Amino acid sequence: MKRRDFVAAAGAATLLGACGQTKDCATGEADASAQTQETINWTMATTWPPGFQGLGTGAEYLAEQINKLSNGRIKVKVYGAGELVPALQVFDAVSSGSVEMGHGASYYWKGKLPAASFFSSVPFGLNAQEMNGWLLKGGGLELWQELYAPYNLIPMPGGNTDIQMAGWFNKEINSMEDIKGLKMRIPGLGGEVLKRAGGTPELIAGGEIFSALEMGRIDAAEFVGPYNDLAFGFYKAAKYYYYPGWQEPGATLEAIINKDAMEQLPDDLQEIVRTACLVANTDMLAEFSQKNSEALKILVEEHSVELKKLPDDVLNRFKQISEELVAEQGEHDELSKRIYQSYLSFKGLSLEWRKISRSL
Amino acid sequence: MKRRDFVAAAGAATLLGACGQTKDCATGEADASAQTQETINWTMATTWPPGFQGLGTGAEYLAEQINKLSNGRIKVKVYGAGELVPALQVFDAVSSGSVEMGHGASYYWKGKLPAASFFSSVPFGLNAQEMNGWLLKGGGLELWQELYAPYNLIPMPGGNTDIQMAGWFNKEINSMEDIKGLKMRIPGLGGEVLKRAGGTPELIAGGEIFSALEMGRIDAAEFVGPYNDLAFGFYKAAKYYYYPGWQEPGATLEAIINKDAMEQLPDDLQEIVRTACLVANTDMLAEFSQKNSEALKILVEEHSVELKKLPDDVLNRFKQISEELVAEQGEHDELSKRIYQSYLSFKGLSLEWRKISRSL
Repeated sequence: MKRRDFVAAAGAATLLGACGQTKDCATGEADASAQTQETINWTMATTWPPGFQGLGTGAEYLAEQINKLSNGRIKVKVYGAGELVPALQVFDAVSSGSVEMGHGASYYWKGKLPAASFFSSVPFGLNAQEMNGWLLKGGGLELWQELYAPYNLIPMPGGNTDIQMAGWFNKEINSMEDIKGLKMRIPGLGGEVLKRAGGTPELIAGGEIFSALEMGRIDAAEFVGPYNDLAFGFYKAAKYYYYPGWQEPGATLEAIINKDAMEQLPDDLQEIVRTACLVANTDMLAEFSQKNSEALKILVEEHSVELKKLPDDVLNRFKQISEELVAEQGEHDELSKRIYQSYLSFKGLSLEWRKISRSL
Repeated sequence: MKRRDFVAAAGAATLLGACGQTKDCATGEADASAQTQETINWTMATTWPPGFQGLGTGAEYLAEQINKLSNGRIKVKVYGAGELVPALQVFDAVSSGSVEMGHGASYYWKGKLPAASFFSSVPFGLNAQEMNGWLLKGGGLELWQELYAPYNLIPMPGGNTDIQMAGWFNKEINSMEDIKGLKMRIPGLGGEVLKRAGGTPELIAGGEIFSALEMGRIDAAEFVGPYNDLAFGFYKAAKYYYYPGWQEPGATLEAIINKDAMEQLPDDLQEIVRTACLVANTDMLAEFSQKNSEALKILVEEHSVELKKLPDDVLNRFKQISEELVAEQGEHDELSKRIYQSYLSFKGLSLEWRKISRSL
């Protein structure tokens, strides 16, 4: 529903009078549930191909939860990337109010807002559980909301992919020498790290990775993790599957809500929208936990994929470059600095606890 | 609200007629929101001391979420252990319908239902994220519901403490020799493992651990993790703080709902109750992630606590005993066997993914 339609609908409801029903109160035949059944129709634009496993289906789950929890008072219709607006225009579309909601990842907007990356994933950053700790209990969500407020947007965590894989390689990586000149599909900050390490990051859309790998136009490609990578069949186009996904150790997906649309909702529906985002956040991580485990087994046992760990000297060099690069994301203005400091301080605390919790 | 009160209230609503309002429809002064404001009062009994950090406050958060999401249509009043029923009678109280909800941990009921332990935590079992994967996507929740169905109960995950610590010790543990005769407060399956390993598990209530440690009546005690342990001041009564918490690697807390009470709710309120449990589940884990990290730093830096890792040979022996003991929990009947097999198969899959996701 566009904003003016919503206002019109709200006006119509008012015209029905204090009785708040669509039939005449005096007839005694009023539909008692009419007021609660007043449907608010929202549109959600996403950055995912329609029906994309885990991510696109996670956005659909979120919409369904809003519908169920509100008993149909809000209906959210979900569109894939390009169906309504292109993937990279989702932020602007929700900001302007041409759609009420969006689902994507905050690092897509780092050109506009460099500090946005902290709210999805940064190289060698927080893992999925730690992201929830920082966002929900460490002040992260409040900073994220502050960052998006000038754009008339309310962000919420709306999913997590868990740690990703380092990617598919047709050449072995034994030392930093093998990184020099490596042509690899790797977007975002990860790509910038690769570039500073001597490699050549390539920007290739998800749907074109397979043929680029198969034709030898690139030496390597990172995408998501076993769940999505199995579905895309990358094992047919590359020999080695490297881990760990240093570039995205636990990517939070975002739900964004147009602030005006949100504020026109009664309090309980606002709570329902926020809560549905949190439940979608948990549900997606649970799905990736289960599906990644399952897909990894299939890749190794049925498709004879060779799993390999990146050598320590490569990981250490990537880490060093990453820390410099991530610090640069937090240098742009006063708010970026506060976001970076908050993230860094949570990460420092978490690393000690991580060491302990991983020792079993 | 007791069941008969609920039925009475529902009857009263019907008597109001199709108009469903508390005032005369014909007057035109009807309170349009009356129908949605019909309050259902529920009572939640918990196994936690009133206001207990993280666990008790998590139960209160759950109640508050139900209230907010339902716009006050359900109000849940939370009672601490002993305020209404003793901690270990929560299961029976919800089962009989004398209260509508409970909050606790499923392993408290292992005397009655040995397989119940799988739904909270078993020694060397799944961690918090893996528990969510198994419960929500691996068939675990359906099995849990099947296990509780004969008791007229619907279980839901309602929190997670994250991995716990191995405990507070006044004697160093350098080998299995130091376990022989060790008097340690450690309940549940962990206690049974200690016993089979030659130690002496002691049953001591949370509030009495401090003095038992301080007086030397026991050599060691496990409780929860840094967040709760700091608050209880155990660092004043013991020298060493050992990790990892092999006995509880990611304890899921449970919300239980009386089935009749649930089924009397309209569909959207049932969805709201289930969703509030899932959100409480996530919120508590986020809180423990943040608070454990913070408390660990305080314990080490301000209270000079000496952190120590249990030696590998001790962990390996505990693991061996644990695997035998855990298998016994899944031997009692056909359903126990299916629960154990499902858990074991999810754990097998997860361990491979865990290795990869922890390599960063």
